[in-house]
Amino acid sequence: MVSQKKYHRALGVYGIYEKNNQLLVINKNGGPYINRFDLPGGSLEDGESLTDAMQREFIEETGVEIEVVSNIGTIDFILPWDWKGFTHVHHIAIFYSVKKIGGEISKPDQFEGQDSDGALWVSKNDISDENASPLVLKAFDWLETGQLGINLVNYKDWLIKE
Amino acid sequence: MVSQKKYHRALGVYGIYEKNNQLLVINKNGGPYINRFDLPGGSLEDGESLTDAMQREFIEETGVEIEVVSNIGTIDFILPWDWKGFTHVHHIAIFYSVKKIGGEISKPDQFEGQDSDGALWVSKNDISDENASPLVLKAFDWLETGQLGINLVNYKDWLIKE
Repeated sequence: MVSQKKYHRALGVYGIYEKNNQLLVINKNGGPYINRFDLPGGSLEDGESLTDAMQREFIEETGVEIEVVSNIGTIDFILPWDWKGFTHVHHIAIFYSVKKIGGEISKPDQFEGQDSDGALWVSKNDISDENASPLVLKAFDWLETGQLGINLVNYKDWLIKE
Repeated sequence: MVSQKKYHRALGVYGIYEKNNQLLVINKNGGPYINRFDLPGGSLEDGESLTDAMQREFIEETGVEIEVVSNIGTIDFILPWDWKGFTHVHHIAIFYSVKKIGGEISKPDQFEGQDSDGALWVSKNDISDENASPLVLKAFDWLETGQLGINLVNYKDWLIKE
């Protein structure tokens, strides 16, 4: 029997907000990165621009109002995810460097589609393959090296922490 | 009566291949940029990585085999396009700098989904709002300034040259 791969493609915008060598992350409460640290961000609403979506998602998930500083690259990730008949997720993530212009870190409102359970600061030492999403790992790579790379990151195994 | 906008979202990867201040473009034979110069590139196949799609589309549309050098940014464009019940296209374009590693410019094979009618070199002086896609205009901006920007480019009017 041939195993047939079925890919769910997901596109999103994600913000890197760094202060004193710490990165602002969210506690993810849905999707393949559930119960891990993830970057603030997500998918676009209909007809919404990339930068508008970045600002909206950031404030929804963290309480912090941001300005988008620069685009730092786009990386795609493939990982096994058994969901709605799909076998994998192909996640295309557009990364931005962002800075705070208002608001404070606060517990996010819960509504349908909200997948942040709150924001917190983490250091490189706090994160690992076990507790972070691929996006957070990439973000720390970028903070350390200034390079994001261009190549697909392909996870043969991925633990969904439900 | 309220006019309802309906956006067709299209995501693609596009390559900037420059030589002697000229840019390699294609004659587009489909979509909202029909009968204009456009960048080689296009959408991903199922489960295909961004960089694999870039290499495949480039060779399909131009005959030139490329290596992807770097990601130079991602820009989105909205323009009016009356197609299959949609009123607009929201085009999200991931731009790469690429270099040639083999092949030669040649007339592309025609197959379903092929939207290149051949590749050619153009200079900045050859292109205008009337004969180029938004992506080609952006590519020349980048070649001149090294900046792609981050903001949505929103065309209130767009001439489909069918």
